[in-house]
Amino acid sequence: MIPSNWYNIVPDLPSPPPPPLHPATRQPIGPEDLAPLFPAELIAQEVSTERYIPIPQEVLDVYRLWRPTPLIRAHRLEKSLGTPARIYYKYEGVSPAGSHKPNTAVPQAYYNAKEGVRLLTTETGAGQWGSSLAFACAQFDLECQIWMVKASYEQKPYRRSLMKVYGGTVHASPSTVTNAGSKVLADDPDSPGSLGIAISEAVEVAASTPDARYALGSVLNHVLLHQTVIGEEALAELPEMPDLVIGCTGGGSNFGGLVFPFMREKLAGNLRTEFRAVEPAACPSFTRGTYAYDFGDTAGLTPLMKMHTLGHDFVPDPIHAGGLRYHGMSPLLSHMYELGLFTAVTRSQRECFEAGVRFARTEGILPAPEPTHALAEAIAEALRCKETGEEKVILTALCGHGHFDLGAYDRYLAGDLEDFTLPQERIDEALTHLPG
Amino acid sequence: MIPSNWYNIVPDLPSPPPPPLHPATRQPIGPEDLAPLFPAELIAQEVSTERYIPIPQEVLDVYRLWRPTPLIRAHRLEKSLGTPARIYYKYEGVSPAGSHKPNTAVPQAYYNAKEGVRLLTTETGAGQWGSSLAFACAQFDLECQIWMVKASYEQKPYRRSLMKVYGGTVHASPSTVTNAGSKVLADDPDSPGSLGIAISEAVEVAASTPDARYALGSVLNHVLLHQTVIGEEALAELPEMPDLVIGCTGGGSNFGGLVFPFMREKLAGNLRTEFRAVEPAACPSFTRGTYAYDFGDTAGLTPLMKMHTLGHDFVPDPIHAGGLRYHGMSPLLSHMYELGLFTAVTRSQRECFEAGVRFARTEGILPAPEPTHALAEAIAEALRCKETGEEKVILTALCGHGHFDLGAYDRYLAGDLEDFTLPQERIDEALTHLPG
Repeated sequence: MIPSNWYNIVPDLPSPPPPPLHPATRQPIGPEDLAPLFPAELIAQEVSTERYIPIPQEVLDVYRLWRPTPLIRAHRLEKSLGTPARIYYKYEGVSPAGSHKPNTAVPQAYYNAKEGVRLLTTETGAGQWGSSLAFACAQFDLECQIWMVKASYEQKPYRRSLMKVYGGTVHASPSTVTNAGSKVLADDPDSPGSLGIAISEAVEVAASTPDARYALGSVLNHVLLHQTVIGEEALAELPEMPDLVIGCTGGGSNFGGLVFPFMREKLAGNLRTEFRAVEPAACPSFTRGTYAYDFGDTAGLTPLMKMHTLGHDFVPDPIHAGGLRYHGMSPLLSHMYELGLFTAVTRSQRECFEAGVRFARTEGILPAPEPTHALAEAIAEALRCKETGEEKVILTALCGHGHFDLGAYDRYLAGDLEDFTLPQERIDEALTHLPG
Repeated sequence: MIPSNWYNIVPDLPSPPPPPLHPATRQPIGPEDLAPLFPAELIAQEVSTERYIPIPQEVLDVYRLWRPTPLIRAHRLEKSLGTPARIYYKYEGVSPAGSHKPNTAVPQAYYNAKEGVRLLTTETGAGQWGSSLAFACAQFDLECQIWMVKASYEQKPYRRSLMKVYGGTVHASPSTVTNAGSKVLADDPDSPGSLGIAISEAVEVAASTPDARYALGSVLNHVLLHQTVIGEEALAELPEMPDLVIGCTGGGSNFGGLVFPFMREKLAGNLRTEFRAVEPAACPSFTRGTYAYDFGDTAGLTPLMKMHTLGHDFVPDPIHAGGLRYHGMSPLLSHMYELGLFTAVTRSQRECFEAGVRFARTEGILPAPEPTHALAEAIAEALRCKETGEEKVILTALCGHGHFDLGAYDRYLAGDLEDFTLPQERIDEALTHLPG
C-alpha cells in the first residue's frame, strides 16, 4: 500500500542538523532567501519539524502509476551465492523514468503548479533527474526546461529523447540561452559542460523569469522527505525485519528514502537494524571527505551547507554511475553520520559492474550503475555470511534500471572498464578551496 | 495471482486448425519431423488437445520475478481524451527483457534443459526475443546462441549488449559460423541480413550440433499457449468485463496470449466481448494477405503452414515495430480469423507514434512501437465513444516498453518518421511465389 504520509526524521534525531548559511552574511538563511527558487510549501517542508507530512491526493493519484513498487526476495541471487543470508530488494526502476527520482519530481511539480508556477527549470547530468521532472511536469501541465551537461547530451541521446517525449525542452549546457552559459562559451566554445554550470543556467532562468521556479533532485531535506515512500512501503511489506539495510549514496536521496523509516523504528527501540551507505571509490564524500560548510554547486551560487564534502570544485573521475558523481552529501545525512547512526564504505567501478552482471543473470533485472554499488556490498556481506553461517536479513534498494547504461556494461564485458584510484592529493587540493 | 495452467484453445474451437505439411510429401508432419529442432514436451504441447496444461513449478519460480504483471486503468489517458470509455492495459514491459517474450522463453528453456539439451539457438530481429531467450537460458544453465539480423546488430547495439549481459553469444547474421551464412556472404559480402537468413543459420546449428535445439518466439501453438498467462491474469484481475479487447499482431503471440482466455469465456456463452487485431499498414497479413499454405521462413526450410500470409519472400518496409514485420501469421489465429472469431484492422506508423507519445505523457510508460498499434486503435475507439457517449470497457496489452526505441521517437518528434504505403502489386507479386 502507498503510504499516506511522508516521514520527516528531523524531530526524531537527538539534535537538529546545522542550518544553511547565507554566503555573504554567514547568518542562517530564511524562507525569503529561498522564495525566488522554490514554492512556499516546499520551503516549509525543507525546514519542517513535523514528523509526518500528508501526501496530497493529487500526488497519490500519480504515484499510483507505479507505486507501491515491488519488494522482492532475491532467491535466485542467494542460491547462486550459496549464502544462508536472505536478501530483499525494493525495486524503484518500475517508475516512468526508471528510477526513484519521480517520487520527488511529482510532488515538486505539484506544489509549483498549485502556487501558480508555469515553468520549472533544472539541470541534469546523465538524464535520470531531467526525465523524471519532465514526466512530472507533463502530469501537471507545467513547462519544463532542462540544462543537460553537454558531454552527456551528446553521449546519451536516448535520455535526452525521453525528456522530449515527455514534453520537456532540453538545452545542451553550456547554452547561449543564459548569461552564465554564454560567458562559459565565450571563454571556451568547446566546453563539455559540468553540473555546476548547468545549475547556474537553470537557476538564472528560474530567478529571472516570471512564474518560473527551480527544482533539485537530491541533497535537500524536502527531497529526502519525499523519498521516504520507499522505506515506508518496505517496512510494511517485509515478512521479516532486516539486520542490515544497504543503500548507495550520491546526494543521499535514495539512501535517506530507504533508511529513514527503519531508522525511526530503531531510534524508538523497536529494531536493531544496522545501516550502511555505499559510495563510489571515485567520489568518497563520507569516507574521505571533510565535514564543513561548503557550496552545493561548483560555481558557488548556493547557500553554504554543512556537509561531507570533497570540495565544491572537486571533479570526480568519469565513472558510469553519474548519479553518484557529486562532491557533497545531503546535510541531513551528513549530520546523522556524525551522530554515528550509520556507517559508510566504498566500492570501485569494476566490482560494481561484476555485481550488476551477476544480478542480471540471476534476478533478471539489469541494474543501473548506481545501485550496483549497494548490490556489490550486499553480495560481499552475503558471502561473509556464507563463511560464518549467519542467516542475516539484508535489505537494499534497487533504485533504477540500466536500460540506458548498456554501453558501460559492454565496456565491462569487453574488459575495457577502468577502476579509478583517487590520490589523497586531489582531495587535499580541492579542500583548500573550501569557503573560508 | 499467477495462473497454475496454460490454456489451450484448440479443443474449444468449432473445428481444429489445418495441420502443417511436409514440404516434399505434402502429408501432415509428425512429431518425428520436429524432434531435431524441439524437445518432446514442446512438440506434445504443439499438437495437444488438452484444454489445460499445468505450468511446472520451476517455470512458476522464474515467472515470479515479474508476474503477475500490473493491470492498470488508464485514468489519465481517458481524462486527456475526454472519453466516457474505460481503458485498461496489462503491462508486460516489467519483465526482465522488457516485453511479453519471456513468458514463453522461460518454459522453452526449462523443457529443453529438462531433456538434456545444452545449447539453444535462435534468430532475432530487433532483439526482443533474443534477449528474452538469453535471460531464460541463464536461469537454467543453458548455452544460448543468437543470430541477430546484421542491420539491427549494427543499429541497436544496446539490445545486443543486453543479450551478452545475460550470458548469450550474439552473431551478426549472415555469419561465417554456418554454411547458410557463408553462402550468403560469398554472394554478397555486404548483406544486411534478414530474419529468413538468421532462421536458417540458427536451425542449421541446432540440427547439426549434439544436444542442441532451436527456439522460436512466436507463430507456433506452444508459444501462444505459454502467453495465455497474460489473458488469464487479466481475466482474474479486471473489475469489470471488457466489451472490446484490442491487441497488436506480428506473429500472433501477444494477441493470442491476451485474447484466448476471454475467447474461451465467450465461446462458453459467458461474455459478449469483441476482439480486434491491429496490424501495421506496412505488413497487413490478416487484412490484405491470403489464407494459404506457405513457408514460415524466407528461405523455405520450415514445414508448410496454413496461414494468412503476404508470401514468404515478402519484405515489409522498415517500420520501427520490428516485432510486427513478419510475412505470415500464427496458423491457429489464422484459422480463428477464418471462423470469424475476431476482426482485424491496420494502423500506420505515424499515428502509432502519436498514440505512443500521448500515452507516455499521460500514463508515464513509454510504449514499444509494437503496442502503439493497439494503443492507436484503443484511442480511436475511445474517441468514437466520446461521440456516442458509450461507456465501453476496453482492454489492451502493453506488450513492451520502448527504452530501446527512442531513436524512432526522436525521428517522430522531429517530423522525420515515414508513413509507408503498400502498393497492391507488391503483395500480388510476392503471392505468386507461394509454394504450388
